[in-house]
Amino acid sequence: MLLSREDTAAGAAVRSLPRFDPYIMETYLDDLREMKRQVYDLFKYNPELLTGPELSKEEHRAMVRTQLRALLKEGINPLTFFDRDYKKYFYLAECLSMVDLSLMVKSGVQYSLWGGSVLNLGTEQHRRAYYDDIGAFRLPGCFAMTELKHGSNVAALQTEAVLDVSTDEWVINTPDEGAIKWWIGNAAEDGKAATVFARLKVPSQDSQAGLVDHGVHAFVVPLRDEAGRCLPGVEIHDCGYKVGLNGVDNGAIRFSHVRVPRVNLLDRFATVDKSGRYSSPLTSESRRFAATLGELTGGRVGLTCGSVGVLKGAVTIAIRYSAGRQQFGPPDSAEVSVLDYQSTQLKLMPLLATAYCLHFAKDHLVNLYVDMKRTKDALLVEEVHSLSAGLKAYTTAFTQDALSVCREACGGHGYAAINRLGQLRSDHDIFQTFEGDNTVLLQQVTGTLLKGYRARFKGAPLSSTFSYLKQYVAGALPHNPLVTHETDVRHLRDPAFLRGALRYRVARLLFTLQLRLRSQRGKLGDFYAWNACLSHILALAQAHVESVALNSFQAAVEACIDPDCRRALKALCDLFALRCIEKDTLFRNDEYVAPAKAKAIQRLIVQLCSELRGVALPLVAAWGVPDHILRAPIGLGVHSGVDIYKEYLAAVGFDV
Amino acid sequence: MLLSREDTAAGAAVRSLPRFDPYIMETYLDDLREMKRQVYDLFKYNPELLTGPELSKEEHRAMVRTQLRALLKEGINPLTFFDRDYKKYFYLAECLSMVDLSLMVKSGVQYSLWGGSVLNLGTEQHRRAYYDDIGAFRLPGCFAMTELKHGSNVAALQTEAVLDVSTDEWVINTPDEGAIKWWIGNAAEDGKAATVFARLKVPSQDSQAGLVDHGVHAFVVPLRDEAGRCLPGVEIHDCGYKVGLNGVDNGAIRFSHVRVPRVNLLDRFATVDKSGRYSSPLTSESRRFAATLGELTGGRVGLTCGSVGVLKGAVTIAIRYSAGRQQFGPPDSAEVSVLDYQSTQLKLMPLLATAYCLHFAKDHLVNLYVDMKRTKDALLVEEVHSLSAGLKAYTTAFTQDALSVCREACGGHGYAAINRLGQLRSDHDIFQTFEGDNTVLLQQVTGTLLKGYRARFKGAPLSSTFSYLKQYVAGALPHNPLVTHETDVRHLRDPAFLRGALRYRVARLLFTLQLRLRSQRGKLGDFYAWNACLSHILALAQAHVESVALNSFQAAVEACIDPDCRRALKALCDLFALRCIEKDTLFRNDEYVAPAKAKAIQRLIVQLCSELRGVALPLVAAWGVPDHILRAPIGLGVHSGVDIYKEYLAAVGFDV
Repeated sequence: MLLSREDTAAGAAVRSLPRFDPYIMETYLDDLREMKRQVYDLFKYNPELLTGPELSKEEHRAMVRTQLRALLKEGINPLTFFDRDYKKYFYLAECLSMVDLSLMVKSGVQYSLWGGSVLNLGTEQHRRAYYDDIGAFRLPGCFAMTELKHGSNVAALQTEAVLDVSTDEWVINTPDEGAIKWWIGNAAEDGKAATVFARLKVPSQDSQAGLVDHGVHAFVVPLRDEAGRCLPGVEIHDCGYKVGLNGVDNGAIRFSHVRVPRVNLLDRFATVDKSGRYSSPLTSESRRFAATLGELTGGRVGLTCGSVGVLKGAVTIAIRYSAGRQQFGPPDSAEVSVLDYQSTQLKLMPLLATAYCLHFAKDHLVNLYVDMKRTKDALLVEEVHSLSAGLKAYTTAFTQDALSVCREACGGHGYAAINRLGQLRSDHDIFQTFEGDNTVLLQQVTGTLLKGYRARFKGAPLSSTFSYLKQYVAGALPHNPLVTHETDVRHLRDPAFLRGALRYRVARLLFTLQLRLRSQRGKLGDFYAWNACLSHILALAQAHVESVALNSFQAAVEACIDPDCRRALKALCDLFALRCIEKDTLFRNDEYVAPAKAKAIQRLIVQLCSELRGVALPLVAAWGVPDHILRAPIGLGVHSGVDIYKEYLAAVGFDV
Repeated sequence: MLLSREDTAAGAAVRSLPRFDPYIMETYLDDLREMKRQVYDLFKYNPELLTGPELSKEEHRAMVRTQLRALLKEGINPLTFFDRDYKKYFYLAECLSMVDLSLMVKSGVQYSLWGGSVLNLGTEQHRRAYYDDIGAFRLPGCFAMTELKHGSNVAALQTEAVLDVSTDEWVINTPDEGAIKWWIGNAAEDGKAATVFARLKVPSQDSQAGLVDHGVHAFVVPLRDEAGRCLPGVEIHDCGYKVGLNGVDNGAIRFSHVRVPRVNLLDRFATVDKSGRYSSPLTSESRRFAATLGELTGGRVGLTCGSVGVLKGAVTIAIRYSAGRQQFGPPDSAEVSVLDYQSTQLKLMPLLATAYCLHFAKDHLVNLYVDMKRTKDALLVEEVHSLSAGLKAYTTAFTQDALSVCREACGGHGYAAINRLGQLRSDHDIFQTFEGDNTVLLQQVTGTLLKGYRARFKGAPLSSTFSYLKQYVAGALPHNPLVTHETDVRHLRDPAFLRGALRYRVARLLFTLQLRLRSQRGKLGDFYAWNACLSHILALAQAHVESVALNSFQAAVEACIDPDCRRALKALCDLFALRCIEKDTLFRNDEYVAPAKAKAIQRLIVQLCSELRGVALPLVAAWGVPDHILRAPIGLGVHSGVDIYKEYLAAVGFDV
């Protein structure tokens, strides 16, 4: 077995972590394992439902449709979960991610975006009209928000919905090419209707004044008839091949004066009566806009879960292959596993650590989301909005980089399409952009932190995620020169030191940011002051996410009662935190970490990577991605002693 | 025009660089522009030769074959260049890279690998037998080195070539599945013959002793008959879809006792006579092996050039799109270009700077290569071997990361397949692995540095690339505490400071590495001592490449006589060097850069990125990639005022 070989062969004084039972770890990680089994069994007993690597976009789209219908037939209805059991809904996203990301996204479009917008932005009449048909995929639909020229800046969308009082209808229109709805999932082939985001315009009550623009609202607009033909005034083109996700039929839609009944306004936050009178319980256009977008945070939670699923899958493949692949060695000895090289360990062990960290962080986010939906507490709403934005940005960016690292770690065989790393990278790539571009989302996180900072001065309460800032907001803490120079491993692995360092960084960046913004605002105005501080703003948001993620991870280490599992988790957790400190020059510029301490941290990182290598295989086994779902021939091997080449030879056509 | 808009709108105190004429810059960068025009005109007047995004692997392979034949018909014969004019050969690799990387690689397989191995490892008889047919692509061939279980560790290849004295033939055999030749380009469909790397075994002169293994040698082995059928004993399978480069037909080959004449040994470095007597002018197996592999460094130079070509293309697309794309803005004003955001500038301007740097560095490498081939000087051979390894590793890793950054910078529209960034990333990915895995190549660079270090102590000469180390090798220089704290911009942009810092880092890493290796060797032995220092070893190699690259760049800045071009080049060069210093904590751990200086460097980087934004469009225009080769609808725009969306709308099917 690989583990024991390494213990004896490495020669170096490799300290090892105790072995643990992967099943105990899996039990600790996952309390919905039954559901995972149900989903994965569907594909186990129907292997023809698994996507191969060589499909045209039309074939891939047909495959995804078949997969989705098979799930429904199995009783797995994502809309029901989305409506009643969020935890299951988000867990499904993670499960589907390694089946086919196109399936995960297609399901997200149908249920979270199209279904979710009808349920959350509409009222009871809309639920009654559409719920069953959406759930059963009899009414495939779209979420038509993005336009050719406007993605991130949703408030500037140009599509119009003008009320024609004489017929009691909205007239939906695309005023120019820049306003063509673009990248709309489900639009190119399947969509029968769409939630269309458009500027709501009604005649001015003062008849002289023409139309009044109330800003962006959501409307249900039919797109195709029963036979699948576009309805009059609806022009749809296939967006064509994408970098990945070609199982999702994205299209571009132009509306030419399409008429829909007045009731098709999704009117939870604002209504318009027969006479064209606009009314809303929310007092300003910006509040209504925020409420509308706020209902869509679920999508970001789902993407975070899917991204964590991909990260686990890719890291599983890379670690198993690197453990099995051997290359070079001491003279007259067997070659050594690639995973025994320090360079490979330094590439892959931090991915393993971060994957564990993000697993617990996403669980934390899901739990907050469930609480928010239950309590509707205003502070929780703000916290979930911010954390879902930040964690989506952080996780998807991390996973995307990790996919490249995993491909490279698997060398030439990682470049075979059947080993999946390329397709996963191409598919996952857009997770960084859709449902909020990461750069924009991180700015929202900082916006919330600044708001909290100001609120603190006014004595207002802080949501729980931010409460740790209380002690810091008065400015940077003076730091103890003895601690700055301390290099003892016990200190460096003390959870209080690690947590404190990451919190210090958030507080420090927040404190200096508000000073910089204040001083720049006078010269440049709000917009350009913000732009002049943008790298600072992004650094603060990332620092905050890392701090929150570490909290979740440390809590999970503490709560683990199996001592061997806990030791492995503690090593992963410390590695994650130490890498955050090592990578960020803020700690150096502030002299929070002296040179000798920085060097000690680097040595400790190398040491932890080496220790974790000994339990890397059970650590990925604990994620429980079965071979038939993982599918990469070089990444299989739930049993020890497996030949990583056997399935691979067979796949290429050799008799084995 | 975009530039002037930005000058007035940004509000911030943006210092600007003077405008320059892109054509003057292009003239300075490229002295083979005529050849570029010839190659690109072929595709301009025959647009059906340009690869689209939706091909199956079979269609793509057919397309690449057609492209290659069209080049030959045009009189562009890569083998002639490879044989007589290396500079043109490498320039062709750069030109072809943005046409289709599969074409560049297919050409490299046929001419540099298959043709090059015959010319460089064989003797006059082999040249006579194959030259014309290889050149005309009448004899497509393979370079059959890599095996299923051995890629990097070439010395451990298992394929055998045993001399049968009775028939005067080599018997080529694959002893087990691990020795199946794998990933062999040209093998799946086209290859009629191959250079096969196999262990040369001859009967012992002492008839009792069986066979003597002389290690890995190269043999010409026919694979297919005129009709394209595999010859007896040759089993070939298609390696199937890859992550990218699907226009290249990679295959896996198993040999079962295939017989070829004794003269098929490529015998430049060793011969075997009729009686089986082995002789070589080189005295040891390791020298012969080094000489054999040494003849293949040309491939790495070609990959470096191709990678630089891809980097230029991708950065061109991302910068043009970011300049044209607008999103958000101050209240009641027009939206601003995405390239005006500090975050975008900090992403893209370092790519621009590094692309320019690597352009000059690869020119330096090509010139060294040409000199080496002319003089056959031993020090030059070593230098080119090391620099080609280091620069290939550095450039391909950088370009690969840059491709992801460019895709993300282009947001959703960067995810459309027609905008090419995804395909380029998937195609280019394997550049990091083939012709030497980057991690392995970097270790070779450090090996050469250590050898030079030891030679220095013995008073031996150092090759020119390493000569700067002379002054440092006695150990780390004490550094001046005043300089450590100096934050003046004039100092930070002083070429001597920047060059000195990068050289200091190499010397310091080299000095400490040999101490560490010496102390570890006693405990661990050579192999594990090396492994224990591996991250240090890789850091040293990268530091060396950055130092050499900066030298080339600084020389190019100085030699530029147009003052406006020179100012832009100087800003790019300084940005490149400052980023190297900023990113590496060695400067902090050594207290070579004090905290205040580090902060000043960070501010200066932001400032330089902002200044360069003003000339970013002419800087990419100077690379001279014409629109019909670039092809990405969102990346076009050699003329000002172009609408970045127009071609894109048309491509998706809208009337425009």
